[in-house]
Amino acid sequence: MVNYPEQLDRTFAALVDPTRRAILARLEREDGASVSALAKPFAIKLPAVMKHLDVLAEAGLITRSKVGRTVTVRLSPEPMREAVDWLRRYERFWSASLDRLAAYAESKEIELQEKDR
Amino acid sequence: MVNYPEQLDRTFAALVDPTRRAILARLEREDGASVSALAKPFAIKLPAVMKHLDVLAEAGLITRSKVGRTVTVRLSPEPMREAVDWLRRYERFWSASLDRLAAYAESKEIELQEKDR
Repeated sequence: MVNYPEQLDRTFAALVDPTRRAILARLEREDGASVSALAKPFAIKLPAVMKHLDVLAEAGLITRSKVGRTVTVRLSPEPMREAVDWLRRYERFWSASLDRLAAYAESKEIELQEKDR
Repeated sequence: MVNYPEQLDRTFAALVDPTRRAILARLEREDGASVSALAKPFAIKLPAVMKHLDVLAEAGLITRSKVGRTVTVRLSPEPMREAVDWLRRYERFWSASLDRLAAYAESKEIELQEKDR
């Protein structure tokens, strides 16, 4: 995969829409699905689903292959790796708040033990 | 934090823009920065930076506090946690490709050992 800076822009832009996230989530569970099968759960029309698939394909998050009249859509998760890596730097804040929570719980326990004496 | 479905939409939408990502990355390293200090590295004008800060604040990713004439911007990373959690489900694909790479390396090693005999 060529990794130019705009890739991350396109990955996050593709993930903004809940319909596109739902399509990616389904393709994570199923190894390939037809366009019509993917469109079925949504209240929107087929052309609208096709547009979402275009956005996902342009972001490199899905591939489409045609056999006869059936287009099979498959997940191409690689670009999401960079997105996770980008977000990972903030993890220390969550573990820091977990640390504070643990310290708080510990202080409460000591308080209770002191009351029991 | 109230967690309604649109939060994830807004988090990813806030992350689409490289200027906004750069602001978040800076606030990850510095505990609070003034708006003018944040604007300095960018070629865009102050009102454009202010608009980016509005988007980040609406997504709950930063807080702004005013003392005198100085507005201090701070990181509020909590919404990014949900975004990481959402993306995590795809991790198995990357570890799967690492597994395949390891298997390939192993097969090559065996090949080499056989040639040495």
